[in-house]
Amino acid sequence: MFFSFDGIDGVGKSTQLDLFSEWLRTAGHKVVSCRDPGSTELGESIRGILLNDFQTPICRPSEMLLYMAARAQMVEQVIRPALAAGQVVVSDRFLLANVAYQGYAGGMDVDTLWSVGQVATGGLEPDLTFVLDMPLDKAAARMQRELDRMELQGDRFRELLRAGYLAEAARRPEKIAVIDASGPVPEVQNQIRQAASRFVKPL
Amino acid sequence: MFFSFDGIDGVGKSTQLDLFSEWLRTAGHKVVSCRDPGSTELGESIRGILLNDFQTPICRPSEMLLYMAARAQMVEQVIRPALAAGQVVVSDRFLLANVAYQGYAGGMDVDTLWSVGQVATGGLEPDLTFVLDMPLDKAAARMQRELDRMELQGDRFRELLRAGYLAEAARRPEKIAVIDASGPVPEVQNQIRQAASRFVKPL
Repeated sequence: MFFSFDGIDGVGKSTQLDLFSEWLRTAGHKVVSCRDPGSTELGESIRGILLNDFQTPICRPSEMLLYMAARAQMVEQVIRPALAAGQVVVSDRFLLANVAYQGYAGGMDVDTLWSVGQVATGGLEPDLTFVLDMPLDKAAARMQRELDRMELQGDRFRELLRAGYLAEAARRPEKIAVIDASGPVPEVQNQIRQAASRFVKPL
Repeated sequence: MFFSFDGIDGVGKSTQLDLFSEWLRTAGHKVVSCRDPGSTELGESIRGILLNDFQTPICRPSEMLLYMAARAQMVEQVIRPALAAGQVVVSDRFLLANVAYQGYAGGMDVDTLWSVGQVATGGLEPDLTFVLDMPLDKAAARMQRELDRMELQGDRFRELLRAGYLAEAARRPEKIAVIDASGPVPEVQNQIRQAASRFVKPL
């Protein structure tokens, strides 16, 4: 089983991902958590360039391809071995994030991004992606830390981003579950577990 | 006008590229030389990871995507502006190198690499690519410096590489000129200039 969490920043992905992993562990599963980009040496150095190196200019296609390169390495080095060993993988973001950020919000062709993504992942995709959703102002109010390069792209970008996530969820409802993340943490977690229940087999 | 030089290592690409650029300058053209990967801040840091960082594991698709990311940035930041200003661009390697290295020699699907390349370059391709060709043992004998990661992949890899360059040249003869690089430098250069002559307009 392979799950991913996605959505605009500030919706509580990490908290919900941790609670979900805990739930899976309590049910007896071995869980591998990862974050995209990251979770490999190559991925973490790419992450550094993409998010926190504010000096180096990066054009949109280049940005997208760097995310893809980091993901390819994570699939090869972390996700495929874990799945082969019967473990559950839970990823903080995955290919859908490129589709939303560089596609819907960044102006690149969405289907092209899915195709390049296929090459990067060798066709591996999450059984289910949770898109955590809430109004933009509410999400923004929760962002207390210093913003990275992706988070600094402005309100119009974030509107397109949220609309993009919802549009893809509408296109692929069997693969993407929209979770209303504006309520209290345990309520949100319950929605996630319910959506996951058809995949999570008791051990 | 946009030219690129490609081929296995040790065939004398840099020497021929320099002589060719000189010839163009003498004819009155402004020439911008670049190298792929490289020629931008992002490209040079990607180049460092790809060629000289021997510690970080990089899988084949990831390697390919990093080259593509570097190229996308070079097209945006160096090549398109130069062409728009009426200058001639001469690049040490370009997309064909991915097709040969990760495709023919590395086992990835060749047409997939051309497609991802289209996304990276926005469809921009050299008017003409010179593939400098010579027998493998002759090229190897000319490599005196320390080898980088790509150059250390062994004889079988280099055979597939050479065969790949020749196969692509046969598939796209109007775009790729095979140059016999085993003769003396001035003779090789003459072949290159002759092949280029239908593109190089006198000023």
